[in-house]
Amino acid sequence: MSDTPTLALVSATIDMNYLRPAFEAACPGIELRIWPDLGDGNDIDAVVCWEPPPGVIATLPKLKLIQSLAAGIDHLVRDPALPDHIPLCRIVDSQMASGMAAYVAWAVVHGQRHMGAYLAQQRAGEWREQPVQHPPQHRVGIAGFGALGQACARTLLSIGYAVRGWKRSASEVPADLAAVSLFHGDDQLADFLSGCDTLVCLLPLTEATRNRIDARFLAALPKGAHLVNVGRGDHVVDADLLMALASGQLGAATLDAFRTEPLPAGHPFWRHPRITVTPHIATRTPASVIARQTLANLSAILSGRATEVAIDRHRGY
Amino acid sequence: MSDTPTLALVSATIDMNYLRPAFEAACPGIELRIWPDLGDGNDIDAVVCWEPPPGVIATLPKLKLIQSLAAGIDHLVRDPALPDHIPLCRIVDSQMASGMAAYVAWAVVHGQRHMGAYLAQQRAGEWREQPVQHPPQHRVGIAGFGALGQACARTLLSIGYAVRGWKRSASEVPADLAAVSLFHGDDQLADFLSGCDTLVCLLPLTEATRNRIDARFLAALPKGAHLVNVGRGDHVVDADLLMALASGQLGAATLDAFRTEPLPAGHPFWRHPRITVTPHIATRTPASVIARQTLANLSAILSGRATEVAIDRHRGY
Repeated sequence: MSDTPTLALVSATIDMNYLRPAFEAACPGIELRIWPDLGDGNDIDAVVCWEPPPGVIATLPKLKLIQSLAAGIDHLVRDPALPDHIPLCRIVDSQMASGMAAYVAWAVVHGQRHMGAYLAQQRAGEWREQPVQHPPQHRVGIAGFGALGQACARTLLSIGYAVRGWKRSASEVPADLAAVSLFHGDDQLADFLSGCDTLVCLLPLTEATRNRIDARFLAALPKGAHLVNVGRGDHVVDADLLMALASGQLGAATLDAFRTEPLPAGHPFWRHPRITVTPHIATRTPASVIARQTLANLSAILSGRATEVAIDRHRGY
Repeated sequence: MSDTPTLALVSATIDMNYLRPAFEAACPGIELRIWPDLGDGNDIDAVVCWEPPPGVIATLPKLKLIQSLAAGIDHLVRDPALPDHIPLCRIVDSQMASGMAAYVAWAVVHGQRHMGAYLAQQRAGEWREQPVQHPPQHRVGIAGFGALGQACARTLLSIGYAVRGWKRSASEVPADLAAVSLFHGDDQLADFLSGCDTLVCLLPLTEATRNRIDARFLAALPKGAHLVNVGRGDHVVDADLLMALASGQLGAATLDAFRTEPLPAGHPFWRHPRITVTPHIATRTPASVIARQTLANLSAILSGRATEVAIDRHRGY
């Protein structure tokens, strides 16, 4: 490697050119190659990717870092040719958490306070009060209680909601989240779900969580609950979600992630009166953060230090 | 007064019967009289009111307390016959603050994250990302920085917004709001407004604040700002608001309070594409809180103690 690194920016679905100014500002002289124009793969020290085309990363023999530009790595590990000996990093960042907390607060209040009904009433010129329920009477559960889930919990607690969290294994949470009821593991999942008037899915996508939000899972929620999915589309069994809405078991769903994105024209989610669709915009990582964390991770690896966010490939996040 | 008090519940606009169960639970044996059936006015110890018909309160000679069922008293003091020697109380309550924080968080995010555009895109089956701005880059100002404004600030800070507050006079704020930039008095109003990408109006309605949100006030905001009015309709000069929207000086308005309520059919606010109308539902005080605070205030007055929330009639809140 020369004094400044050479990076490949690889995505099959988005134009990675938007990252160029941030990397050039963070590391003057850096060489950036955007897929498919990767040149000689021997030059490339690190790859930054979002939904890379399968097999591309395996063509880079001198790679020292595979950097996801998001909190998830599911879009990476589904490449069957992904080299398994190269460090893999994801982004965890306060600005990403901030955007997520904003979206989740909006979605929870939108459902709980009937804001969609008010917007429809305005279109009809109708002045009518919907039922009022005070936030402390409304229980919001967050499945996936990592950095993003905890940021959302902080905002929901500040409003006054009764917040609970579920994660795979027990762990400490910061003192300012002491009011959150914590559940963990499969044994406590049903207990957790039974007290979620709104359920926010912030799970990582792993083999253990794929298709997890199915008929049985939805049946464990209180009747009429609101599902907010800001995880991945593959967490949800679409047909089961539609059935649960049809039966009234599920009251509403706010979905920001889908099995196929963009959500295909004609998909029943688009037109469902109790589904809110947003185009995977709950949060974004600023380009400056991606550049800074990528360069810090690469520098750590080159000097034998630990990277900021280490991935356990077996666990999947 | 007998062992249990006799209360008059008086409103020209809402059915006060909804308060009956809460008062009867809080004080078994209490006598409640609902206007216009007040019986012998000599029996009545306290009046609980919302928009009382002018002159009614003056007909109650033994009154010891006039209790507003909301945070504002503007609906009371516009009665020219309101007796000026009887203690006047308003409600300040954490559940009222909780509802307000929920509404304001929704309104701020709805504007800042283009959620209305996403809802419209869903109706059109359109998958398209709106511009992303990270919450820390968005400045939210709260005009009126009392208990409700502070509760909203706490939630907005937790999301990561840059929060500023303005109030009439300088005063201490709790330590957890140290990140809020504080402004006070008329001298600092223009400075305050110049940094409000979203402005939340939570002012009390007084002679000093009536019609305050006029052309000049709106011109002091950054171009394209979003006004959220959860104060009173009389704070806003409707024609000036419409002009500021037409010129682009104001980007959008979310209005929960109007000069005439219900907002009259045909009022231009109903159909304006950049105005969101909600029917004065930002928050509610639980009946149990109204009952508890009214009885505590009456008991304090009868035993010569200070009431929980004293009103300075000259100041107007």
